Amino acid sequence: MPKKEPKQLDELFHETLRDIYYAEKKILAALPKMAKAAQNPDLKAAFDKHRGETEEQVTRLDQVFQLIDKKPQGKKCPAIDGMVEEGQEIIKEFKGSPALDSGLLAAAQAVEHYEISRYGTLRTWAQELGLARAVRLLETTLTEEKKTDEALTELAESCVNQQAQREAAE
Amino acid sequence: MPKKEPKQLDELFHETLRDIYYAEKKILAALPKMAKAAQNPDLKAAFDKHRGETEEQVTRLDQVFQLIDKKPQGKKCPAIDGMVEEGQEIIKEFKGSPALDSGLLAAAQAVEHYEISRYGTLRTWAQELGLARAVRLLETTLTEEKKTDEALTELAESCVNQQAQREAAE
Repeated sequence: MPKKEPKQLDELFHETLRDIYYAEKKILAALPKMAKAAQNPDLKAAFDKHRGETEEQVTRLDQVFQLIDKKPQGKKCPAIDGMVEEGQEIIKEFKGSPALDSGLLAAAQAVEHYEISRYGTLRTWAQELGLARAVRLLETTLTEEKKTDEALTELAESCVNQQAQREAAE
Repeated sequence: MPKKEPKQLDELFHETLRDIYYAEKKILAALPKMAKAAQNPDLKAAFDKHRGETEEQVTRLDQVFQLIDKKPQGKKCPAIDGMVEEGQEIIKEFKGSPALDSGLLAAAQAVEHYEISRYGTLRTWAQELGLARAVRLLETTLTEEKKTDEALTELAESCVNQQAQREAAE
């Protein structure tokens, strides 16, 4: 039997692309539930806005698959499954609590950071593989994810403040 | 039956503290395997260094538990389980490949970003809960994690470059 060739960077790129593709689809399904559960109208709006962005991010990933002549196909990612599961648990456990929004924000930021690390990695590899068009697509999404994370941080700070004011007024 | 009071921010803080405590212990167990698998000596050294830091981070978490009068105890975190599992898969699938180090780096950066989001969240909540000493402890670890992530990004860039040079020389 011939010795199997070790896998190369292009395969690692393809596998990680499949990982984030699965993650984006999972996030797309989770966002409406998070928007529905959110109490703060700004947080609801942020989740709705991010849903639209996520749809565009999936389209960009479709294009990257096309650039490497592969079919867009996800690969089960237990990390994102775990994060989305944690978000669902918070919705259940903190229903009716003033802390619910803070919990939703924390879950969303964990997801954002996962995506930031994935897109950063993919962009570095695309650069190395000479996939200039893919670099631009991945860079666009990376910038979007960082902006979303910053917006969530601002909301997190204002949410806990508002919550404290509500509690003080009771 | 009396109506159950909704959970508050202090409980969310405690639960998230248990989540990151579990994660840190899991990372502590995974780091020697990653150091052993790494090919690049700088990457090996980075994993070893981060193991020492992680031990100190666990000690800081012990102190935060003490500050809120709770026993240090982890809570199963499926997200970190998933990320560590992905790292193990890479070690297995890319053994002997020049792309192994790039894969290990990507797995490590996903973990770092998860921690950055958790410590950022916990610090904001500690501030809100008036836990000044906890804020300082969490802030120290947050700064460390961000530095680790930056060091890994630099290594990731130099790793793929070295790999490309090796391939070009073959």
